[in-house]
Amino acid sequence: MYIDLNSDLGEAFGSWNMGDDAAMLAVVSSANVACGFHAGDPLVMRRTCIAAKLARVGVGAHPGYPDLVGFGRRRLDCSPEEVAADVAYQVAALLGVAKSVGAKVTHVKPHGALYNVIAKDALLATAVAKAIKEVAPQLPVLTLPGSAMVTAAQQVGIRVVTEAFADRAYNADGSLVDRRITGAVLHDIDLICERMVLLATEHVISAIDGTEIELSAQSICVHGDTPGAVRIAQAVRAALETAGVEVRGLGRRVVPL
Amino acid sequence: MYIDLNSDLGEAFGSWNMGDDAAMLAVVSSANVACGFHAGDPLVMRRTCIAAKLARVGVGAHPGYPDLVGFGRRRLDCSPEEVAADVAYQVAALLGVAKSVGAKVTHVKPHGALYNVIAKDALLATAVAKAIKEVAPQLPVLTLPGSAMVTAAQQVGIRVVTEAFADRAYNADGSLVDRRITGAVLHDIDLICERMVLLATEHVISAIDGTEIELSAQSICVHGDTPGAVRIAQAVRAALETAGVEVRGLGRRVVPL
Amino acid sequence: MYIDLNSDLGEAFGSWNMGDDAAMLAVVSSANVACGFHAGDPLVMRRTCIAAKLARVGVGAHPGYPDLVGFGRRRLDCSPEEVAADVAYQVAALLGVAKSVGAKVTHVKPHGALYNVIAKDALLATAVAKAIKEVAPQLPVLTLPGSAMVTAAQQVGIRVVTEAFADRAYNADGSLVDRRITGAVLHDIDLICERMVLLATEHVISAIDGTEIELSAQSICVHGDTPGAVRIAQAVRAALETAGVEVRGLGRRVVPL
Amino acid sequence: MYIDLNSDLGEAFGSWNMGDDAAMLAVVSSANVACGFHAGDPLVMRRTCIAAKLARVGVGAHPGYPDLVGFGRRRLDCSPEEVAADVAYQVAALLGVAKSVGAKVTHVKPHGALYNVIAKDALLATAVAKAIKEVAPQLPVLTLPGSAMVTAAQQVGIRVVTEAFADRAYNADGSLVDRRITGAVLHDIDLICERMVLLATEHVISAIDGTEIELSAQSICVHGDTPGAVRIAQAVRAALETAGVEVRGLGRRVVPL
Repeated sequence: MYIDLNSDLGEAFGSWNMGDDAAMLAVVSSANVACGFHAGDPLVMRRTCIAAKLARVGVGAHPGYPDLVGFGRRRLDCSPEEVAADVAYQVAALLGVAKSVGAKVTHVKPHGALYNVIAKDALLATAVAKAIKEVAPQLPVLTLPGSAMVTAAQQVGIRVVTEAFADRAYNADGSLVDRRITGAVLHDIDLICERMVLLATEHVISAIDGTEIELSAQSICVHGDTPGAVRIAQAVRAALETAGVEVRGLGRRVVPL
Repeated sequence: MYIDLNSDLGEAFGSWNMGDDAAMLAVVSSANVACGFHAGDPLVMRRTCIAAKLARVGVGAHPGYPDLVGFGRRRLDCSPEEVAADVAYQVAALLGVAKSVGAKVTHVKPHGALYNVIAKDALLATAVAKAIKEVAPQLPVLTLPGSAMVTAAQQVGIRVVTEAFADRAYNADGSLVDRRITGAVLHDIDLICERMVLLATEHVISAIDGTEIELSAQSICVHGDTPGAVRIAQAVRAALETAGVEVRGLGRRVVPL
Repeated sequence: MYIDLNSDLGEAFGSWNMGDDAAMLAVVSSANVACGFHAGDPLVMRRTCIAAKLARVGVGAHPGYPDLVGFGRRRLDCSPEEVAADVAYQVAALLGVAKSVGAKVTHVKPHGALYNVIAKDALLATAVAKAIKEVAPQLPVLTLPGSAMVTAAQQVGIRVVTEAFADRAYNADGSLVDRRITGAVLHDIDLICERMVLLATEHVISAIDGTEIELSAQSICVHGDTPGAVRIAQAVRAALETAGVEVRGLGRRVVPL
Repeated sequence: MYIDLNSDLGEAFGSWNMGDDAAMLAVVSSANVACGFHAGDPLVMRRTCIAAKLARVGVGAHPGYPDLVGFGRRRLDCSPEEVAADVAYQVAALLGVAKSVGAKVTHVKPHGALYNVIAKDALLATAVAKAIKEVAPQLPVLTLPGSAMVTAAQQVGIRVVTEAFADRAYNADGSLVDRRITGAVLHDIDLICERMVLLATEHVISAIDGTEIELSAQSICVHGDTPGAVRIAQAVRAALETAGVEVRGLGRRVVPL
């Protein structure tokens, strides 16, 4: 048994820091690296790729909307053509920076509002899938199981890695509980660990209404931008390993580079 | 006899246009395509690469300082590390966009203030050369003969293509006459054409003091951002061809892709 | 009888031009000046304010979403707090630039997607109205008759100037015909002039279904970013004056500065 | 006896924080608030102005070069016209945001590389002085004693407030020791406090070569972007007060608003 652990890293910008990348690189097996549109700049990207390489963590391109001040978390009404061009540009930039330092790129994971939009909008999801196929056809896209992005990736012909969120509650239909609902975000470390072990070993998770649902995820997303988040990530990894689940990056298993 | 003709293209940004790319693509053999930092955006880059491909014009990455409002023409005191990261990022982005539409990338030509800075500053020139080598070791850098960039490229181990400027006067030492000096920019089409034919056929150019100097250039840079500039470019090409000089892109001759 | 003629000006950015501001300043009585977020930069703003002052044209702050590459035409999901802060910042910047050159500021007109969003969204319209009241309580907001922005302005306590669009078709309920519908944008200069004279003299306009509707507008918006648009604007002004309608800016009539 | 204590605040940007503004607002009497070009965004500016108002700390416009990724610390070769427009825009924006929340603006202090450039370049210093005079003629500029900015301000006709740096060593001619020289930045809290008390009470400071020089400063600049810096600032204030020097903002004494 094995599973990938992924986290958003390289989210500094210029003189501004974000999160504890060093701590997280000791925990995760995949790093989603911001590409300069919502966070990251060329030097931050380079340093993050170097650090990921040294930590033997796979690097993923993490493209977002061109909205630094909003950190890519605000929906921007782009056309499919605009989204495709923005994603191709960002993925290519990350590929080049990673190549320049010898880091291994293992996946693409869209960021923030873009991630949420293409989980539901088939046209934009297809635009993203095509952009990835044109620039990096060998890379899988990391996304929500059952989302429009999964369908688009399959139709376009790129691989998919599905993920679960360690600290999020799920609806009975497998979707994430809206953040504005009480209980949508989990804070109890023991509960989070228990859920993730169950997910990794039995592909099952308890929904917010108490029903057990099947959830197939090849990766678990953990956050690292607060001290509490780092502790949760560390605990999740420890719990997985104690339960006999190996934390293994995407490169060895999924991506035939 | 043959020579390359290069011009800066793809300098639109969002809703703003710049120059007549369609006219220039019918004239030149190499297009220096802005990479988003001083001009260009992902969609403009994509469209420019498609147009260049259709016109059988080679594409060059045209990285600049991160200064949209200044169009990359204002010197920005970056460290070598910052310049290298910015160049690697931009070259990589252009490579990916070009790949996504099947355009051939033939060279790298730094833009504006960056071009001028690395013609003189050995440290920054070396940083640029290393960045190109890390991301695109097969590509030559297009630069001024006799500049610090030539030396840096040779030391780092990337190829060089030297260029002359069609509408600029030269000092007796082969350097460009400062734009602030009267006569630094030439406007007489016949004179420009005559000079470029002499350059291409005999590797000689008249300096501003009247002496004839040797100038070896594998490419001629023509401008296309004004109607007058387009006419000059067209006339230069016609004069070269009439004189038996083939206008030939960098791809076939210099770059063993 | 009199009416204001307004147009978006100062939409250059750095080295990029947009439209023929000089021609339009000879036609309109109010200039909506971009404030740096979707177009314009400090130097462009300054030059536009100087030109407007010399042409005796009133200046309006023209705030937009922070989206240069999208020219402020793409909806961005900002919170009311974000929109209010962005509008206050841009209006203040324009006020200061205008003051520095002695230009008279007569109004605020939100731009592009922001204009459309606050025509319908009461929360965001209220945020904009409050921002204007805090920074420039004496200035009216220029907006669509019957829109959420009118209601918000009245509730918050700032003045309103309503406008009609010279080249747009109207639905029978007084709303604009969606641009995606055939016939939404008018190109027949004679028809446009006839409609605007009727609007200015009898407050009536023909809807797309042929019914005549009442439309009260204190200003007419004309475009200037294409040669054809400039000609339409010139023709509208000439037709109004021939019909005895004076083109008069907002400053003298509406704004008690 | 009294002196002003100033610090750079409001240097967050979007989701990125910088420094401990709350702690510093309890220490200083003047806050230099970033205006969006090198740091700060409209919402950060608004929140910083509200916090400064509640802490009864005077607000200063803190304009910088348009270089977010470089935090305004990299020299950018702008023309005097460009610098003037950028400064006018930023000062105006800050004035409006401050007005919208009822915060008192007491001064202008250019930031980073711009601060250093106009300490030496008379043309650019004059451009900045004129921009301030056009937008906010009542505000003093906070700058280095003996600098080109002082001369320019006097010639243009705006007031000057001079400042000393708590943690910097001085040359015998009153200039700052270059940061690249060992000993240029002081870290010994007791020494820093002793020096600032001497400066405030006797207008004297020990230069790096041991000589005592006269230094007239109406304000002391303290940093707040690291935990250590906050402790130094707190210690300086305590030492001044113990020595009978009142920490008093610029508003009451210098600016006749």
